[in-house]
Amino acid sequence: MEDVVIRTLDQVELRDPILVEGLPGVGNVGKLAADYLREQLGAKPLATVYSKFFPPQVYVSEEGIIRLVSNDLYYWRAPASAHHDVLILGGDYQGISPEGQYEITHRVLDYCHGLGVREVFTLAGFAQGRVVETPRVLGAATLPTRVESLKKHGVVFSRNDPGGGLIGASGLFLGLGRLFGMEGACLMGETSGYFVDPRSAEAVLKVLGRVLEVPIDFAALEAKAQEIDRIAQKIHEAEQRTAEPTSATGPASREDLGYIG
Amino acid sequence: MEDVVIRTLDQVELRDPILVEGLPGVGNVGKLAADYLREQLGAKPLATVYSKFFPPQVYVSEEGIIRLVSNDLYYWRAPASAHHDVLILGGDYQGISPEGQYEITHRVLDYCHGLGVREVFTLAGFAQGRVVETPRVLGAATLPTRVESLKKHGVVFSRNDPGGGLIGASGLFLGLGRLFGMEGACLMGETSGYFVDPRSAEAVLKVLGRVLEVPIDFAALEAKAQEIDRIAQKIHEAEQRTAEPTSATGPASREDLGYIG
Amino acid sequence: MEDVVIRTLDQVELRDPILVEGLPGVGNVGKLAADYLREQLGAKPLATVYSKFFPPQVYVSEEGIIRLVSNDLYYWRAPASAHHDVLILGGDYQGISPEGQYEITHRVLDYCHGLGVREVFTLAGFAQGRVVETPRVLGAATLPTRVESLKKHGVVFSRNDPGGGLIGASGLFLGLGRLFGMEGACLMGETSGYFVDPRSAEAVLKVLGRVLEVPIDFAALEAKAQEIDRIAQKIHEAEQRTAEPTSATGPASREDLGYIG
Amino acid sequence: MEDVVIRTLDQVELRDPILVEGLPGVGNVGKLAADYLREQLGAKPLATVYSKFFPPQVYVSEEGIIRLVSNDLYYWRAPASAHHDVLILGGDYQGISPEGQYEITHRVLDYCHGLGVREVFTLAGFAQGRVVETPRVLGAATLPTRVESLKKHGVVFSRNDPGGGLIGASGLFLGLGRLFGMEGACLMGETSGYFVDPRSAEAVLKVLGRVLEVPIDFAALEAKAQEIDRIAQKIHEAEQRTAEPTSATGPASREDLGYIG
Repeated sequence: MEDVVIRTLDQVELRDPILVEGLPGVGNVGKLAADYLREQLGAKPLATVYSKFFPPQVYVSEEGIIRLVSNDLYYWRAPASAHHDVLILGGDYQGISPEGQYEITHRVLDYCHGLGVREVFTLAGFAQGRVVETPRVLGAATLPTRVESLKKHGVVFSRNDPGGGLIGASGLFLGLGRLFGMEGACLMGETSGYFVDPRSAEAVLKVLGRVLEVPIDFAALEAKAQEIDRIAQKIHEAEQRTAEPTSATGPASREDLGYIG
Repeated sequence: MEDVVIRTLDQVELRDPILVEGLPGVGNVGKLAADYLREQLGAKPLATVYSKFFPPQVYVSEEGIIRLVSNDLYYWRAPASAHHDVLILGGDYQGISPEGQYEITHRVLDYCHGLGVREVFTLAGFAQGRVVETPRVLGAATLPTRVESLKKHGVVFSRNDPGGGLIGASGLFLGLGRLFGMEGACLMGETSGYFVDPRSAEAVLKVLGRVLEVPIDFAALEAKAQEIDRIAQKIHEAEQRTAEPTSATGPASREDLGYIG
Repeated sequence: MEDVVIRTLDQVELRDPILVEGLPGVGNVGKLAADYLREQLGAKPLATVYSKFFPPQVYVSEEGIIRLVSNDLYYWRAPASAHHDVLILGGDYQGISPEGQYEITHRVLDYCHGLGVREVFTLAGFAQGRVVETPRVLGAATLPTRVESLKKHGVVFSRNDPGGGLIGASGLFLGLGRLFGMEGACLMGETSGYFVDPRSAEAVLKVLGRVLEVPIDFAALEAKAQEIDRIAQKIHEAEQRTAEPTSATGPASREDLGYIG
Repeated sequence: MEDVVIRTLDQVELRDPILVEGLPGVGNVGKLAADYLREQLGAKPLATVYSKFFPPQVYVSEEGIIRLVSNDLYYWRAPASAHHDVLILGGDYQGISPEGQYEITHRVLDYCHGLGVREVFTLAGFAQGRVVETPRVLGAATLPTRVESLKKHGVVFSRNDPGGGLIGASGLFLGLGRLFGMEGACLMGETSGYFVDPRSAEAVLKVLGRVLEVPIDFAALEAKAQEIDRIAQKIHEAEQRTAEPTSATGPASREDLGYIG
C-alpha cells in the first residue's frame, strides 16, 4: 500500500489557505486547540489521511461503528473581507516512528501545497514540569519578520526555550514546510506536562485568533478548563489529607484527568 | 523481494464470496474459530501468503519437513441454495511490525477484492482479565444496519467495550476493507486472556454460523473446550492445595494450556 | 541504495552447483563448518554481498586495512567425476532485522538461482542447553525423499526437535528457496549453545562431506576442537577449586572460548 | 518523500576535491574537528542534507528561528598551488537506524562522487575508557600505501585497535566509498569517551592539516581545550573534597562538559 493514503472528501477551491496543525502531544494542547477551533468555526471535512505509520488500530464508536485511525483535514471559508481561508489538521495520532513522522508530514504538506497553502501555524504544548497558573505562549518561526509580528501579539520568544528544539509534527510541519516554500510559526502553550491542559490550549488559540483575525468564543473551552481545575484541586486536597500519599492513588487519579480532556 | 508474496494454489471462480479472518491473537479465539470452520466445512487451499513482515522462520513437521511461516487462504463452495461462497484466512502470525500489519492486510484485501469479496467478518478474542463462564460475543461493524442485524443474532454491542478500539488484523481488515468498498463486522468472543479458549471460539462460531447460514458441528470443539476445562480445574485444585502458591508452578502449568490449544 | 548489493568478483560457469550456507548463529556451528569447508576445498571468491540490513560497520585488519561487513560467496569446481560444483556462503552477520533477513536471503537466492543452483544445504547449531559429548546431527528437509536419504547418512530426524522450527538464515534459505524451485535440507549440529563449538561443526561437516561426496581432512578442525576442550576443562577445574564461584570469573573465562573459535 | 534529500545551495566546479567527514560521535571528536576546520578555512555552504532517517526535529535559534536537523556540506577552494579542493561534511546527527546510516552515507557519497570526490578522510574519536593526557591518532585505511604514508605523519596503526572495527559514519563512508571507487582513511583521536574532547580533535586536525597541506591556526581550539581542562579539574577537586561523592553531583557536573563542547 502507499505509505500515506489521502482520501479527498470534498473538492474545494480555497483562497490563499493557511494550514493550522494540532495533533496529540504534550498536554494534548495542540490537539485541543485545533479541535476547538474546528468546532467553533464549523469547519467542514476536506480529506482523511490514513497511513501504515499509524498504529494498526480501529476505533469503535458508542454505537459500535468502526473507524480506522487517521489524521483529518478540515476547511473553513473565511468571510469575503478576510484574506485567507483556513485548513485545520487534527487526528488520532502522530506517526509512530521517526520515518513515519517524516513521511506523513511530507505527504500532507504536498497535498496542502496543491491546495495553495503557503503559510503554516503549528500548535503545541511546552512542558514546564511544574504547574503553570497563567500559561504564556512561546513561539518559534521560520522568518525574523514573523518573530517580530508574533511578539506584538504577546508571543514570547525565549532565548533558551525550547532549548532542545521541537520534536514531532509541530516542528516538522515547519521544517519540511520550508522545502515546499512555506513559511510559518509554532505556538507553544506552557503546560505542566502532567495532564491535558485546556487552559494552555485557550492561551494558544487566543493568540491564533488574533493573528488569523478569526473571532473565537472561548466559553466551552473555559468550562472544560474549570472542570480540569476542579478535579486537580480535589486530587490535591486528597493528597494533603493522606498522611503518607501512596503512588497508587496519586497517579491513578491523575490519569482520570487525561480521560476527561 | 515483494513485501507480500501471494501464491495462488487453485484458480477458482467464487460466488459473491465472504471473507472470514481468524489469525493468532487474544486467547487465540480468532484462529481457533477460523481453523475449526475450515475443517468443518472442508474448505480447500486457495492461496499462500508469505511476507518479510512475518518472522524469518520455518516450521518443521513431525516428519522433518520444512514449511515457511505464512497466512493461508481457503475457499468453500456453498450449496447452490446459498448466496455466498466463503473464504477463510488463517495462519501462523500476524505481521510483526505495525507497518507490516498494514502492508499484509492491504495486500490480502486487494487479492480478495479481485476474487469478488465485498464483505468481511473478522474473528477475535476480547480479554476480560477474569474467568468468563459463558462468553458473550461482542461486536463492532462498519455500518449501523449491520449492527442491528447482528444484535438479532445475539451479538452484544456495548457502549464502552472495546473502549480503546481494536488493535491488529481483526480491526485492520475492516478499517482498510472500507478503502476497498468492503463492509463487515468483527465478532469478539469474551475470554480471560490467560490461555487459549475454544469455548469462546465456539461462541463466536455459533453466531457466525447463523449469520452465514452455515451448519457447523461443534462436537470436536466442545471436546477441546472440555479438555481445557479439565486442565484449568486441575491447576485450580493444585493451587488450592498449595498453602503458598509460588509463581513458579502456576504460570508453568498455565502455559501448558497454551500448548494444548 | 539498493537493499542488497552483490558484487561479482569472478564470472564463472558452474555445473549444477549446490549452495552450502553457514552464517553466524548458535555456537557458530554453521559458520565454522562453512568456513572450514571453504578452506579445505580451496574454494575461490565469487561474489560479495553488502546490505543496509547488516550493521553499519567496517572491520579493520591487523595491517590497518578496512573492510565493509559482508556475506561472501565462494565456489569450488568439483572433479569431472562429480555431478555438482559447490557454492559456499559465509559471512560476518545475518541481517539484523526480520525484514532484512528476508531481503538478503531472497536476493542471494535469486543470484544463486541465476548461477543454476537448485539444491541448498544450510548448516546450523542446535542448542541443547547442556554439554553435548558426542553431538548428533539433526535434520530438516524440504521433501520426504531427502529425509530418507539423509537418515542413511546418520542424520537424526526427531519428532520434537526443533519444536519451534528454525529461526534465521538456515531456515529461510530453505523456506524461501522453495519459491525459487530449490530443494534442500538443514543440518543442525547439537551443541551446548554456550560457546563456539568446532566439534559440532565437525559432526555436521562429516555428514555433508558424505552427502556431497567431498573428501574433507578434519585434522585442523579437530585441533581447534581439542583446544576448546582444554580451555573448557581448565575453566571447569578452576570452578571446582573455587569454594564460591563468582559470576565474575565464570562468564569472563567462558567468553574467551568465544574469541578462540 | 525521498529517503535522503540534498539541496544544492551553490553550483561549483571543484578541483579533485577531497571529502572530510566529521559527524557527532565518541567525544564529539569528529564533529569538533570538522567544524573547526570549516571555520578556520572559511569554507562555504555547498549543500544541505535532509533525511527521514534523522530525528523528526527542528532546532530553534536564540532569535527564535527554526531549522530542520540536517547534515551540511561545505567547500573550500585551495590555493592554485595545491592539488585538491576540500569538501567538509558536518551536521547535527548520524542516521538513527542502521539502514538510515547506510542510506544517508550512500546518497551523500553518490552526490560527492558527482562532484569529483575520489578520496575521503573520516574523523572520529576512539574511546579508551580512561583519561588520555596526550591523545594519539589511530588510523585505518583502505589501502596499504595509505597506511604507510599516514604512519609518516605520526598516525598509529595498532594491531588490536580498533578490535571490533568501526561502527557508524566514519567507517561507512570508507566502506561504502570503495563501492564508488573512492580510497581513504579514518583518523581516530584517542579520548576518554566521557565528555567532548577538543584536545583529541586538535590532535586529529594536526595530522589532517599535514596530510592535506592545509595550514590551520589552533589557537581557538586550544582555548576551548583549556576551558574543558579547567572544568574537569574543578570537578576533580570537588570530588576530592567530598568525603562521600554522590552520584548526583558527579554526573550532573560532567554533563556540563558536554554542553560546553
